[in-house]
Amino acid sequence: MAAFSRSSLEELLKKRFFYAPSFQAYGEEEMLEMDGAIITPADVLKTSGHVDKFSDWMVKDTKTGDIFRADHLVEAVLEGRLDGDKQAENDVTSQKDKKKKKGAVQAIDNYTGSELGEIIRKHNIKSPETGNDLTVPVEFNLMFESSIGPTGHLKGYLRPETAQGQFLNFKKFLEFNNDKMPFASASIGRSFRNEISPRSGLLRVREFTMSEIEHYVDPNNKKHTRFDEVKDIKLSLLPRHIQSEGKTIPIELTIGEAVEKKIVDNETLGYFLARTHLFLTMLGIKPDRLRFRQHMPNEMAHYACDCWDAEIQSSYGWIECVGCADRSAYDLTVHTNRTKEKLIVRETLAEPLVYEKTVLDINKKIFGPKLRQNAKTVEDYLTNLNEEQLEALKKELDGNGKTMVSCADGNQYEISSDFITIQKQTITEHVREYIPNVIEPSFGIGRILYSLIEHVYWTREGDEQRAVLSFPPLVAPFKCLLVPLSNNPAFSKLVRDLSSKLRKLHIAIKVDDSSNSIGRRYSRNDELGTPFAITIDFQSVNDGTVTLRERDSTKQIREKTDTILQVLKDLVEEDITWEEVLSKYPTFVQQELD
Amino acid sequence: MAAFSRSSLEELLKKRFFYAPSFQAYGEEEMLEMDGAIITPADVLKTSGHVDKFSDWMVKDTKTGDIFRADHLVEAVLEGRLDGDKQAENDVTSQKDKKKKKGAVQAIDNYTGSELGEIIRKHNIKSPETGNDLTVPVEFNLMFESSIGPTGHLKGYLRPETAQGQFLNFKKFLEFNNDKMPFASASIGRSFRNEISPRSGLLRVREFTMSEIEHYVDPNNKKHTRFDEVKDIKLSLLPRHIQSEGKTIPIELTIGEAVEKKIVDNETLGYFLARTHLFLTMLGIKPDRLRFRQHMPNEMAHYACDCWDAEIQSSYGWIECVGCADRSAYDLTVHTNRTKEKLIVRETLAEPLVYEKTVLDINKKIFGPKLRQNAKTVEDYLTNLNEEQLEALKKELDGNGKTMVSCADGNQYEISSDFITIQKQTITEHVREYIPNVIEPSFGIGRILYSLIEHVYWTREGDEQRAVLSFPPLVAPFKCLLVPLSNNPAFSKLVRDLSSKLRKLHIAIKVDDSSNSIGRRYSRNDELGTPFAITIDFQSVNDGTVTLRERDSTKQIREKTDTILQVLKDLVEEDITWEEVLSKYPTFVQQELD
Repeated sequence: MAAFSRSSLEELLKKRFFYAPSFQAYGEEEMLEMDGAIITPADVLKTSGHVDKFSDWMVKDTKTGDIFRADHLVEAVLEGRLDGDKQAENDVTSQKDKKKKKGAVQAIDNYTGSELGEIIRKHNIKSPETGNDLTVPVEFNLMFESSIGPTGHLKGYLRPETAQGQFLNFKKFLEFNNDKMPFASASIGRSFRNEISPRSGLLRVREFTMSEIEHYVDPNNKKHTRFDEVKDIKLSLLPRHIQSEGKTIPIELTIGEAVEKKIVDNETLGYFLARTHLFLTMLGIKPDRLRFRQHMPNEMAHYACDCWDAEIQSSYGWIECVGCADRSAYDLTVHTNRTKEKLIVRETLAEPLVYEKTVLDINKKIFGPKLRQNAKTVEDYLTNLNEEQLEALKKELDGNGKTMVSCADGNQYEISSDFITIQKQTITEHVREYIPNVIEPSFGIGRILYSLIEHVYWTREGDEQRAVLSFPPLVAPFKCLLVPLSNNPAFSKLVRDLSSKLRKLHIAIKVDDSSNSIGRRYSRNDELGTPFAITIDFQSVNDGTVTLRERDSTKQIREKTDTILQVLKDLVEEDITWEEVLSKYPTFVQQELD
Repeated sequence: MAAFSRSSLEELLKKRFFYAPSFQAYGEEEMLEMDGAIITPADVLKTSGHVDKFSDWMVKDTKTGDIFRADHLVEAVLEGRLDGDKQAENDVTSQKDKKKKKGAVQAIDNYTGSELGEIIRKHNIKSPETGNDLTVPVEFNLMFESSIGPTGHLKGYLRPETAQGQFLNFKKFLEFNNDKMPFASASIGRSFRNEISPRSGLLRVREFTMSEIEHYVDPNNKKHTRFDEVKDIKLSLLPRHIQSEGKTIPIELTIGEAVEKKIVDNETLGYFLARTHLFLTMLGIKPDRLRFRQHMPNEMAHYACDCWDAEIQSSYGWIECVGCADRSAYDLTVHTNRTKEKLIVRETLAEPLVYEKTVLDINKKIFGPKLRQNAKTVEDYLTNLNEEQLEALKKELDGNGKTMVSCADGNQYEISSDFITIQKQTITEHVREYIPNVIEPSFGIGRILYSLIEHVYWTREGDEQRAVLSFPPLVAPFKCLLVPLSNNPAFSKLVRDLSSKLRKLHIAIKVDDSSNSIGRRYSRNDELGTPFAITIDFQSVNDGTVTLRERDSTKQIREKTDTILQVLKDLVEEDITWEEVLSKYPTFVQQELD
């Protein structure tokens, strides 16, 4: 074996993309990490548009200085007044006013700051607790700011999304994928928004775990090879045209039909909507409380050209939990322009592309000496002309031998036909270069989790104290509760043996050998969402059988330990259902335990 | 089913600790999260001691303002000079000087700022590139600072460790554990240190993933129930007494012996050192490049009363990758004092504790009227006296009937024997209250990963271009490469079928159907550390056999697909070794592929 060489190893690690300096393209601080860094140099987020556009509108109480998020305040106040208006149903003036308020509330996501200011003025909205006047809305950037290193001069922000870290590694991903398109990168991690007013439990928080997929596609071909697998899945869709009619009743369509009818723009976007539907319902989200709503044009983030939100209904209303955005070539373009590192795909064409093109050739020998210090200005003007403009220029020069051109400096310059040559040329391209488009499904983990909890929460008939969280086995934090009937020492060996067997089967368990009644212990684990329980009693010690209880039905079976373990494994892996188990094994009826 | 009640659900979520507001005890911003928040209110980290003590010493070039970490600069400069000194071996003066330098380098972690300043002055250390003078060392706090919310008034820091978030949830953890001690909480997540000079690849970075376990124990009983399982594991130990002799050769001891000889303080600390050893070697860390070094007293973090680092040797030297600290009751005590929320354990005693105690009783009827506005000051003084001081006071009052006491306000006050009663009382305690001690193993994931990569990296005999990363199957990012011999369409169905079967077996694969030679594709995956490869060739299409190649030996076997899948699964789960496979199945010798 050769002697150790760190430099060779480092070369390998870079080549095989085990890790790389974050934001390397920006050539600033090198923070080495396996997955994306959270602290992001300001320059990256200036380029991505977040420094200028990632903000909410806030208003201040002019006397106390209390701060409110303008859209939330307007929404809350007008909704409150609408409720109050119900007393005045027959008054024509108030009917008209009511309609205005309703319109403002419905369109609340679409207003600019000055529009919000106008609404506040028109509806005479004041600071809610003091009744004082409010300032006009001002923008508040939602990124947390910090400074990197000991000098205090290098500004950074906590990332508002994981996406930027992925985009900047586009070239490495592409190489890792053997230069094949399409492909996706993905990242799960913490992101940050310095919310003006966090609220609604897990739904609006200042730091949150998000899971983002960046799927890179050829802008000329947004088909998806696995679209066929999902095309018959039915989704509840609320496209733009329905919303602009002021309606909120979604249409039910298969994603295949939706893409065919161009309601959803393309297969790749459609594929991810369908997969999102499958993912969320597999977790336990109720399909009738899930819809996909298309963003209105002025509601979208600055980088998006189309966006569909998976919205889940909870007691807080319909909440955006997953966003599926078509970010087009926005991000890769702005980073390419800023860093000069080309984030592009080079595709070798099977057939070379041959076409005619009108091109400009500058006769430097005459052009420079004649135009002298203005040569650069005029050259910039000329090289920016498109084919049509070149043709027009050629026509004029061919006719008059000279012409005046209006350049970027505001001056006109004369050029003669001997300065330049404009002619048709045959171009043969073997390689096509393009900036991929990005389709981005972005999952808010906390929001999905909270919505799920509401969907699986219920209380037992006749006993509202006995709550249950009916998590599917897949998502339950513990799969099985292991309970000895009491803390009699006769059970402890069996508990130990079974714990060890369950661990070997990779089944996450919770042992509850506390002194509470067995009924109390079952209830506690119903509240934790633990789907199954194995109970060890005196009969277990004698004949090696144990009981298996299912959380939702509270029914039990009793079999030899090994049988129970096999049944449990099948249940946890969702290979069989509890109904199937009950049809195969006799139900065990125990003495009342509560 | 009862109607949905969000408040009941929220009650349940709080009770069962699905999530809770971060840093709730500090009653500040409520940032709801599943696991600990990264942005931490300043008050929490002021209390924990990090605002005052979590810092490095830095020096500035007095002319350019360039900043250096003082200890690193001193170390680098003196080490460089020591190397230079080798030319002057026989000079007695330089021998003495050399010894001084060597001493300074060895003790570099132990110096205070003024000591570092003294060394810089004595050894005439200058700014390395300019030769300019350096400022005296000043403290630089290593936490990233930000501000929370729109007002700009609430200061926060990015957490320097995950531990604080765990400590503040101590009561909830204890309750979740049915009030039983000992137990542990754990957290995996990103932490941050605003390093003065990040360096050494993944080893010193500004943000890093750490995994911290906080194991809470009774300070009177640091035994561990599972210590027996690990007691015979041999560790390489470098305790304090060896280091203070200036030696660096560790002693080899079983952890059982080390605890018995009090080299390692207690079973719980010993248990985690042994488990850390098992964990690291299971990942592939070479045992002969792993040692446990005890911190010198003034090297420890401000919260620790003992600490052992698992240090792994790489080309950067011996690097701390895991710290096992005994944080004593430090953190729970300071947070309890600050928030008044008692982070303690209440233990019901089997036998009540009965003992005599000297207690003070204040005769309020006389005390108040006599001392008037000074009553509070004197009362504070008296209630803070310990038993011994109370006995002395009693003696004086019994003798003279009165005495003067010196209070916190700097004044003396006279008290008479009728103001107070001091007497022995029999105390019976049924519940013991104590603040647990915390043993904390803290894993630096990036450092472990980098060290591991160095340990498993080698190049093939006679071909230094062919690098291999010999990750054990457990840690390899991909477990198996799936390669068709060429991109002949005859193979594509088999590739699809096998991919799908491997996915069902939960084996992470990478398909490489690029047009590179098969030898090139094997090499590429050797560099990724992929331990196995299944190859599909023309024979596969005819007879349903495939070959299985092992990365390190490059040997192959050829069997029916189902046999290969079973063998692969056993290999990946480390149920059999490759040697066992070779002894069971004939080796397949293929044509030279490179």
